[in-house]
Amino acid sequence: MSVHLRVITPITTSGFRQPGHLKALETPGLEISHAEIATGPGSIETAIDDALAVPGTLVELARAEREGVDAAIIDCMADPGMNAGRELVRIPVIGPSQTSMLLAAMLGDRFSVITVLPRLRYQFERLARHYHLETALASVRSVDIPVLELEADLEATKRELIEQAIIAVETDKADALIFGCTGLLGCAAAVREGLLARGLDVPVIDPIPAAVKVARSLVELGLAHSKTAFAEPLARKLVGYPLTLGPTAEAAE
Amino acid sequence: MSVHLRVITPITTSGFRQPGHLKALETPGLEISHAEIATGPGSIETAIDDALAVPGTLVELARAEREGVDAAIIDCMADPGMNAGRELVRIPVIGPSQTSMLLAAMLGDRFSVITVLPRLRYQFERLARHYHLETALASVRSVDIPVLELEADLEATKRELIEQAIIAVETDKADALIFGCTGLLGCAAAVREGLLARGLDVPVIDPIPAAVKVARSLVELGLAHSKTAFAEPLARKLVGYPLTLGPTAEAAE
Amino acid sequence: MSVHLRVITPITTSGFRQPGHLKALETPGLEISHAEIATGPGSIETAIDDALAVPGTLVELARAEREGVDAAIIDCMADPGMNAGRELVRIPVIGPSQTSMLLAAMLGDRFSVITVLPRLRYQFERLARHYHLETALASVRSVDIPVLELEADLEATKRELIEQAIIAVETDKADALIFGCTGLLGCAAAVREGLLARGLDVPVIDPIPAAVKVARSLVELGLAHSKTAFAEPLARKLVGYPLTLGPTAEAAE
Amino acid sequence: MSVHLRVITPITTSGFRQPGHLKALETPGLEISHAEIATGPGSIETAIDDALAVPGTLVELARAEREGVDAAIIDCMADPGMNAGRELVRIPVIGPSQTSMLLAAMLGDRFSVITVLPRLRYQFERLARHYHLETALASVRSVDIPVLELEADLEATKRELIEQAIIAVETDKADALIFGCTGLLGCAAAVREGLLARGLDVPVIDPIPAAVKVARSLVELGLAHSKTAFAEPLARKLVGYPLTLGPTAEAAE
Amino acid sequence: MSVHLRVITPITTSGFRQPGHLKALETPGLEISHAEIATGPGSIETAIDDALAVPGTLVELARAEREGVDAAIIDCMADPGMNAGRELVRIPVIGPSQTSMLLAAMLGDRFSVITVLPRLRYQFERLARHYHLETALASVRSVDIPVLELEADLEATKRELIEQAIIAVETDKADALIFGCTGLLGCAAAVREGLLARGLDVPVIDPIPAAVKVARSLVELGLAHSKTAFAEPLARKLVGYPLTLGPTAEAAE
Amino acid sequence: MSVHLRVITPITTSGFRQPGHLKALETPGLEISHAEIATGPGSIETAIDDALAVPGTLVELARAEREGVDAAIIDCMADPGMNAGRELVRIPVIGPSQTSMLLAAMLGDRFSVITVLPRLRYQFERLARHYHLETALASVRSVDIPVLELEADLEATKRELIEQAIIAVETDKADALIFGCTGLLGCAAAVREGLLARGLDVPVIDPIPAAVKVARSLVELGLAHSKTAFAEPLARKLVGYPLTLGPTAEAAE
Repeated sequence: MSVHLRVITPITTSGFRQPGHLKALETPGLEISHAEIATGPGSIETAIDDALAVPGTLVELARAEREGVDAAIIDCMADPGMNAGRELVRIPVIGPSQTSMLLAAMLGDRFSVITVLPRLRYQFERLARHYHLETALASVRSVDIPVLELEADLEATKRELIEQAIIAVETDKADALIFGCTGLLGCAAAVREGLLARGLDVPVIDPIPAAVKVARSLVELGLAHSKTAFAEPLARKLVGYPLTLGPTAEAAE
Repeated sequence: MSVHLRVITPITTSGFRQPGHLKALETPGLEISHAEIATGPGSIETAIDDALAVPGTLVELARAEREGVDAAIIDCMADPGMNAGRELVRIPVIGPSQTSMLLAAMLGDRFSVITVLPRLRYQFERLARHYHLETALASVRSVDIPVLELEADLEATKRELIEQAIIAVETDKADALIFGCTGLLGCAAAVREGLLARGLDVPVIDPIPAAVKVARSLVELGLAHSKTAFAEPLARKLVGYPLTLGPTAEAAE
Repeated sequence: MSVHLRVITPITTSGFRQPGHLKALETPGLEISHAEIATGPGSIETAIDDALAVPGTLVELARAEREGVDAAIIDCMADPGMNAGRELVRIPVIGPSQTSMLLAAMLGDRFSVITVLPRLRYQFERLARHYHLETALASVRSVDIPVLELEADLEATKRELIEQAIIAVETDKADALIFGCTGLLGCAAAVREGLLARGLDVPVIDPIPAAVKVARSLVELGLAHSKTAFAEPLARKLVGYPLTLGPTAEAAE
Repeated sequence: MSVHLRVITPITTSGFRQPGHLKALETPGLEISHAEIATGPGSIETAIDDALAVPGTLVELARAEREGVDAAIIDCMADPGMNAGRELVRIPVIGPSQTSMLLAAMLGDRFSVITVLPRLRYQFERLARHYHLETALASVRSVDIPVLELEADLEATKRELIEQAIIAVETDKADALIFGCTGLLGCAAAVREGLLARGLDVPVIDPIPAAVKVARSLVELGLAHSKTAFAEPLARKLVGYPLTLGPTAEAAE
Repeated sequence: MSVHLRVITPITTSGFRQPGHLKALETPGLEISHAEIATGPGSIETAIDDALAVPGTLVELARAEREGVDAAIIDCMADPGMNAGRELVRIPVIGPSQTSMLLAAMLGDRFSVITVLPRLRYQFERLARHYHLETALASVRSVDIPVLELEADLEATKRELIEQAIIAVETDKADALIFGCTGLLGCAAAVREGLLARGLDVPVIDPIPAAVKVARSLVELGLAHSKTAFAEPLARKLVGYPLTLGPTAEAAE
Repeated sequence: MSVHLRVITPITTSGFRQPGHLKALETPGLEISHAEIATGPGSIETAIDDALAVPGTLVELARAEREGVDAAIIDCMADPGMNAGRELVRIPVIGPSQTSMLLAAMLGDRFSVITVLPRLRYQFERLARHYHLETALASVRSVDIPVLELEADLEATKRELIEQAIIAVETDKADALIFGCTGLLGCAAAVREGLLARGLDVPVIDPIPAAVKVARSLVELGLAHSKTAFAEPLARKLVGYPLTLGPTAEAAE
């Protein structure tokens, strides 16, 4: 069985997600294609950014389904458009925040999120509540570096991640850690190593690789989201968006 | 003290909210102006509709603040754009769903929502959880009439509302009721009467009048939403929306 | 529409609530009258005080209804007699603690209470649980000054309030603040200013003004508490209290 | 070790609790004395009744402690005055509702309360929440017979209890049952038998006998309620009640 | 990367899990070996069975790790020995009940479990609570057929599964379904078809295939359970079991 | 009425529980016999230990019932085998952890557990959740001394207990304390004294004495655990354990 996943990066900073990032996650029988959104914010660090990323994400989800992709992953830890997208299409729509939280809850009793800016604490607390995992969230910690500057000094970013990770485990009693930004892709090994060096053997979840594995698993299992919880779109007059809404969802030309 | 409120109807079906509806809610010292959004869905009954209504709502919230309005009310029980809007502006942004749920929790131990379509049960369960009121929500019941058809046979709509209201009180043990659609504006008296006729003395909350009173109260008290929970926008490149984002939020021309 | 509210101060320290306090809250069309209770404690800082304030409060609630008042506010953050009072009368009975907590939950994700004595932490935790808002309560902090001594050195009281408010926001992650004693009436502006001086833009709720606005709103909306959750009194032999109990509640001569 | 318990019946219907009821619960080394309150309602079936029973109960609790009693039991399932009473005295103050709920939670996963009037559902839901046992409460069922009429046709009362008990187990999935009125003292054997006849082997807790055993156990263990959660009274001017409040609580002559 | 999983069937009814069942789940690069336990019950349908299955399961987990297996799956929906096993070994130990519940919570808002015997309701409610998913569990339904008789009339079993599945979706409002017994392996397609025939488009999770995919994903991601939540064994005298306990866990000869 | 309790120490370190410990808890009419298990760990400080203690505990519970004992107490704060044991026998099976938590929840608003090793925090958090008391658990603190070394320097153990108890009350806001290991039997008076010396008047629950009183109370009340929540065993082939399973449970010779 060959599986084709589409990673949709819901920002308009072209090139933020480099081809190599996703290529490295391909395995035999697993193809990963990529899309960026045409309208929306340059990065996502506020509720406004999150909201403005959704329409473009819906357009790309409709396109992905139309192009025969097997499942789609939204490349942002706010999971922008996940609920609406699951109404729009029938292929699995994966929010890496939800996926990571559920995996983390499986690997330990409580988990922490290490994210970029302090204000994102609200976003993760709201998402954990939305996902029925409020009591499993130990804390949200941040490195206080904006997403578009994470790679400016990658070693400093990793050092700060390790420091916050140690606080999350030792002070907040987290048993597992999640990166709270998909821009941290590739830093998990360093953080895990930093924790082990301090005698802390806890899993560190890198959301995009985790989402890729879960998406592939769902496709192979023939599972998708529930159409009771995420019922199909209703026919609808729509102004200003290149989408046609109705029981058989389809993106317009 | 004179208070100026702006009701923003977040759909593109012009005329859905008629001037008389809001005029009737004005009182001495209270002016209510109205706006519709320029882009978005014709009505809101799905998560997709909700998401696509947000950008247009943000544009109108920014305009309202720029025009010196004292507080804004989003005229939809999905509270679309409430969180993002509170980041964008400093004037109080009122979601009638949140306001009604909190008032209902004050008037009884548990409340039910009577809405238009069955699928909206998910929306209200998610909102109640988001607003810390999951344990106060007794049930969500619906009349199974789309929002744009509520007035086609208004008497039938009221009869069905009364029937569902009775079930909510007698079977689901609701102590207070909320209309789950702002399109039901004006039906509260009939439903209250129908309940009293059956010996059920429970309050029926009509969300828009309730939101108007709460908005005026906040303005008079000098209160607005927290800027920790809803921190100001970050400067941001933005493609496709007539908004300028940054610490001093302002809608572009 | 003219609204007449009655503020009932449920203590026997006559003059604690000065006429000017309430006069200042009147607006055109809004009259606020005042009552004190005839039996009970001199102030309320314990569960005993709270309990002993209730019978006198019920007598005053019955009197207020009999005198045609539109709604009553119990002037104490323990909300003494609110549940029983709502059984006794049909006019809205407002507990400022409940009202403030619900408003605070509307303005931010979590709120803290700043009260007078440390032991009142238990009272507010129990009330928050009772009002379905346990998960929205960030913390209870206190200035450790008895209610009857708050005005002895008002500047010192305000300084201490600001200090505790800052701790609540910075350490306990409160997004909104409530005064945990109606004796702090009038201190909100100073505390808000103190917080802003430190860059903390969070709302500070002064319970009595907030209760006045909410009470007026309920009256204007024609809403009162549910008579399922707060069913009318049962006919009852009663020894020692100047109340007559029965389906039509009435205070005896 | 000899233990002396005081059962305080917090109503003014003298003779409701007959001497034989309590005599039958005495065992070697266990003396049970009795008191009624001097002021308050004739029975307790509303929040008003509950509130008006508290002052008289506090007077009796103070007297019990002064007379050297080892522990006191409040003879009503509303647990009236339990919190305030625990502040007032240092001897254990037992609320049979709390005691029964905790025992029931020990004997099964979820429990139901079978009480006298339907409106008491609110009381038990509020108490369960107050006692941290909200998720363990399966349901509240009632026989719809006022407390003072339970013995008018005792066989009918028992038949109705059995019927509601069966519904609680079969429909509401209760694993254990509690009587929701101390006036049902002595009916547990009949209800248990009725359940067993239907093949339902679940425990039926008779609150006063259970409270007696728990009270004796606490005395023997040298345990009493926490003085952090229930701190001692504060010195207080008090009008209208025969109590003197202060760090060393004492009922006045 | 080649992954070797071990499925441990924790019962002593040899042959219950037939080789073909697991062979069918192998894919290129994925080998699945099988083990049964040497001591324990013939099937697992009670808390006693569950408890007595654990020691044998621990022996097999230790053996699996010693033999270089990459991850182990416990072939029972009670997840017997999952917590203890995660202390004992460092390879991922997968409980199919936990895995299925987390996947179900991802695919819809609430899920139901369809199991074999009614008494297992308690087991799943306890597990859901243990896994932080109590509020996501809609209901537990059962076909009332013992696990060892499921295949006696497989068509009847499937019919009953479909009937219960429909009730779970329509009455209990489940958005996703989980089989509550690994003995139902292979029935998901039939149940899904039965639901679709009734217009109910909800996912049906077959626990062992789902566990296999998740186990493989964890191995590929280099993730295992947290060693804070599941710390390594302590050196320990042990009577009656072929295990040696200590920081470096090893099964004895 | 004469009551015969059996304390079952679920470890294979013979002599850990000395006869004098239990003799001291006997009172007129109360006989306490003792048993140790034949197979299992030398002490219980991990989930593995807990699991391996269960089969031996079940054998002893069956024996106790066969010998006419009135109720059994499992002498370990992990409550090993409590659920399974309650299925196996009809006499009350008391887990001291559950009993202590419920008593603690009765004596204050929140309680802390003071245990031996830090890793046991997970055990108590899981048990509190299992017993519906998650929100009543303030914290778990530990003295970091293994159970078999508690008596090596008993004075040091007590000093450390007092220190942790003070932190639990002052920092974690516990209103009541529970020892988190039955090996601490007899230390309650010293800890209580240490707390009082610091002005902290909170109850300290010694689990085995508390369990003895509650067990006797249940026997006297004619109460046992629910046979819906803990249904009788099913007939079962069983390999490796000296138990015969079936509707009439009986331990084999």
